[in-house]
Amino acid sequence: MSRPLDILVQEMRVITQLRKVAAVLSWDQETHMPANSAKARADQLALIISLAHSRFTGAEFRSSLGLLVDLKTGQVDAASLTADQVRMVEMTWRDWRRAKALPVDFIGKLARLTSEAQGVWQLAREKNRYDLFAPYLERIFEMKRQEADHLGYSGEPYDALLDNYEPDATAAQITALFDRLRPVLVDMVSRIGVDSGNGRTALLEQKFDLDQQWEFGLQVLRDMGYDMSRGRQDRSAHPFTTDFHPSDVRITTRLSETDLPMGLFSSIHEGGHALYEQGLNEAHFGTPLCEPISLGIHESQSRLWENYVARSRAFWSWYFPQLQERFPEQLSGASVDDFYAAINVVSPSLIRAEADEVTYNLHIMVRFDLERALLNKELEVSALPTAWSEKMQSYLGIKPRTDSDGLLQDIHWSLGALGYFPTYTLGNLYGRQIYAAADSQIHDLEGRIAKGDLKTLREWLRENIHIIGRARTAEELLVSLTGEPLSAEPFIAYLEEKYGQLYPQLKKSRPSMVGENNGR
Amino acid sequence: MSRPLDILVQEMRVITQLRKVAAVLSWDQETHMPANSAKARADQLALIISLAHSRFTGAEFRSSLGLLVDLKTGQVDAASLTADQVRMVEMTWRDWRRAKALPVDFIGKLARLTSEAQGVWQLAREKNRYDLFAPYLERIFEMKRQEADHLGYSGEPYDALLDNYEPDATAAQITALFDRLRPVLVDMVSRIGVDSGNGRTALLEQKFDLDQQWEFGLQVLRDMGYDMSRGRQDRSAHPFTTDFHPSDVRITTRLSETDLPMGLFSSIHEGGHALYEQGLNEAHFGTPLCEPISLGIHESQSRLWENYVARSRAFWSWYFPQLQERFPEQLSGASVDDFYAAINVVSPSLIRAEADEVTYNLHIMVRFDLERALLNKELEVSALPTAWSEKMQSYLGIKPRTDSDGLLQDIHWSLGALGYFPTYTLGNLYGRQIYAAADSQIHDLEGRIAKGDLKTLREWLRENIHIIGRARTAEELLVSLTGEPLSAEPFIAYLEEKYGQLYPQLKKSRPSMVGENNGR
Repeated sequence: MSRPLDILVQEMRVITQLRKVAAVLSWDQETHMPANSAKARADQLALIISLAHSRFTGAEFRSSLGLLVDLKTGQVDAASLTADQVRMVEMTWRDWRRAKALPVDFIGKLARLTSEAQGVWQLAREKNRYDLFAPYLERIFEMKRQEADHLGYSGEPYDALLDNYEPDATAAQITALFDRLRPVLVDMVSRIGVDSGNGRTALLEQKFDLDQQWEFGLQVLRDMGYDMSRGRQDRSAHPFTTDFHPSDVRITTRLSETDLPMGLFSSIHEGGHALYEQGLNEAHFGTPLCEPISLGIHESQSRLWENYVARSRAFWSWYFPQLQERFPEQLSGASVDDFYAAINVVSPSLIRAEADEVTYNLHIMVRFDLERALLNKELEVSALPTAWSEKMQSYLGIKPRTDSDGLLQDIHWSLGALGYFPTYTLGNLYGRQIYAAADSQIHDLEGRIAKGDLKTLREWLRENIHIIGRARTAEELLVSLTGEPLSAEPFIAYLEEKYGQLYPQLKKSRPSMVGENNGR
Repeated sequence: MSRPLDILVQEMRVITQLRKVAAVLSWDQETHMPANSAKARADQLALIISLAHSRFTGAEFRSSLGLLVDLKTGQVDAASLTADQVRMVEMTWRDWRRAKALPVDFIGKLARLTSEAQGVWQLAREKNRYDLFAPYLERIFEMKRQEADHLGYSGEPYDALLDNYEPDATAAQITALFDRLRPVLVDMVSRIGVDSGNGRTALLEQKFDLDQQWEFGLQVLRDMGYDMSRGRQDRSAHPFTTDFHPSDVRITTRLSETDLPMGLFSSIHEGGHALYEQGLNEAHFGTPLCEPISLGIHESQSRLWENYVARSRAFWSWYFPQLQERFPEQLSGASVDDFYAAINVVSPSLIRAEADEVTYNLHIMVRFDLERALLNKELEVSALPTAWSEKMQSYLGIKPRTDSDGLLQDIHWSLGALGYFPTYTLGNLYGRQIYAAADSQIHDLEGRIAKGDLKTLREWLRENIHIIGRARTAEELLVSLTGEPLSAEPFIAYLEEKYGQLYPQLKKSRPSMVGENNGR
């Protein structure tokens, strides 16, 4: 390693360690912290985060970085560096430029605003009082417009914010994808209609012992290759994954006696995230080579495991008998097919977080369209409730009766997390492309899953994605794995195949085969 | 607040916050951290601790402090300060002077040595191989002699180390106390002899459900006034108390199905520590006015609750019926007196941590004498096993068959915690003086305890000790509460009274009363 790079990496490790320490504080806050110590914890978090920020944006880091890269253009002096090292420096410069772009005053002001807004949002949702939240939403969008200006963009302001979560993606690119996907989904939803489950879901509407749920979830996680000696699962109000180092990656789940799928799929979802973090190359800890590529790629790992593996027929052909053993009273009379159908019911609903695979992305499109319109001042905050209802009606055929079931349902805007929502759909699409690549490279993947062998897939993901860190961009990764850039086609094909079997009305009336039965 | 003081306090808060963040990392390490992430956590801890140290000993802090105090002499410029503020600055200077006294290289070297020594100690204890640990002990004592020289002392090197834990105490003062206490204890032990419990302890040699133990312990903690909205209890290999702020004070306990007293008394012991931390004045957080006075005073709070409250007849007259309800099979045939006798059996044993109230302090004296002799080079490390046996024989009438049951039993020396052991006995003595003061000031304290009213005592402790922080020294506190400086007399009187009742052989043959029965 060159001497200037060595110095830079040392300093990056310190900054990363501070951020990871903040993550420990946050994890504790969500899982174990006593109720009345929130104030003290907020002070500790603010201190550590500001120490990390000021080191990253300080003179010392600047001069270390300046020895390796043109600070104006990002052009790396590649003379004595390997290709991976060049990428490491490029990515570091990119993060640094963004961190430097926002004035400290601005960061503080935005943090205070969103901190206050979260409380107001919570209250507004509880009391169905959009009028309470609207002034905050107004101010948040105004500050995010300023943030976009600080950060800079070539297309539209939305691009600058999207770049926080999905580097290189643009609103125009997302729009094109969504325009391809939307009519397919809208058509499927309208053909399926409101599916009450027709008794199929009665199987799930029973009580399931929490300890048994917990143990079953852990078993699946272990089978996936989640290393419990370098991670753990806890309970929290909202499931999440956090990492302090590749050797300490923790997940949380939420369990309910009356909602078996919720806890199970949330464990598997977070487990997918956790495998990514555990699979990073810890030799590069502290640098972009030991960081996930983007939120969309991260989400691809969780969705791949949650949906493409754990909602598949093959998966349950192995696990359903085991689930039956844990819940003989509830499940002994049911077949794998009953269970498979029950966990794959499609029906338009109001709440994004509870949506099925088909309708989920339509919820994202509602948010993307409205968020972008608000940011571009094509929509007034006061007109949002009406616009929300119209979008829901148009995409999903239903609309909320209250704002709490509508635009107040998600925390994201109150956090200032604009540009975040599309990464969920990107995760679904990336995930399907990646699954298809794995399927083509792993012999009999489905057969393996049907025998409880999940580790072969995990190993493939580790070698082809996790270990790489940010040495590749999302697009480079996809092209290297699949030969194609981001595309909705594999996802569409998957939905049509899977749900065509579950919902016969989706099978398009095929043109009658000319020549069939003609004679003989 | 004066402007320079204001600036100093702000900086002290930052330093304290960093130390508290390190405490969160340590707590997590002991309670929840996955097995294989120790290396990453060690790096995080080292970073945060070194950030705190360098801020405390850096130029900025020095100049802030220099505006309020003569940095050479510690003389505070009291012109615009209240008495408490003067004390705050004095204590800060005192801590600062000690932190500055040790060269950074020296601290790093000692940290590496003790970090390595802990592993070696653990192995040596497991394998009963003192020869493995002896070279480390040699080097640790050598470095601690150097530390004493760096810190300075007027009496002997031990004083400098003792001062780390018990400010103002000296080896000479401890010696005088121990010389008063030792013959009393040795006499009691020799009169009681080896007490096998004579069947009394059979009551405790049963299996007790862990959940019920846990719940009972929590109930006592709540009754003591431990605020669970600002604290929590977890399990760990070695019980401890840690605090991140007065609003977040956590304890751990260790439970065993076959050892009911262990878990219960350890919860109450740690609960006593926790009440002290929860009772500190958070308005002064970050400064010595929101810090405990000394380890001895801290231990006085845990011992007061563990021994003087929870090993009393009054306490169990209230709680034993409740314990019986939780364990009807095990306890329904027993009386309060049976239980009281069982938890107060006195018998010389080899292990300090399991010793009873009478023998405990003799274990401390063994360690104090040997530690001091080693430090003063009056004893060779190679001669320690023999010296240990002789001391044990002389004080307790028994000696260990293996070093693992002897000088290898405690972790303290491997940590470099020399000067620490006496604070345990100081805690017992302080605690008894304080209990006596509370007893004289609270109407019918025993009667209250016998009715489950523990909060009156807790409130008295809070108002008279906890809230004061380091505004008083240990000696000032004792004199203000009891009119006396540190003394062994109340403790001796307590033991003679309590154990005189439990062990009739302790009742001294009274001189026959002249004039008794003479005529009438």
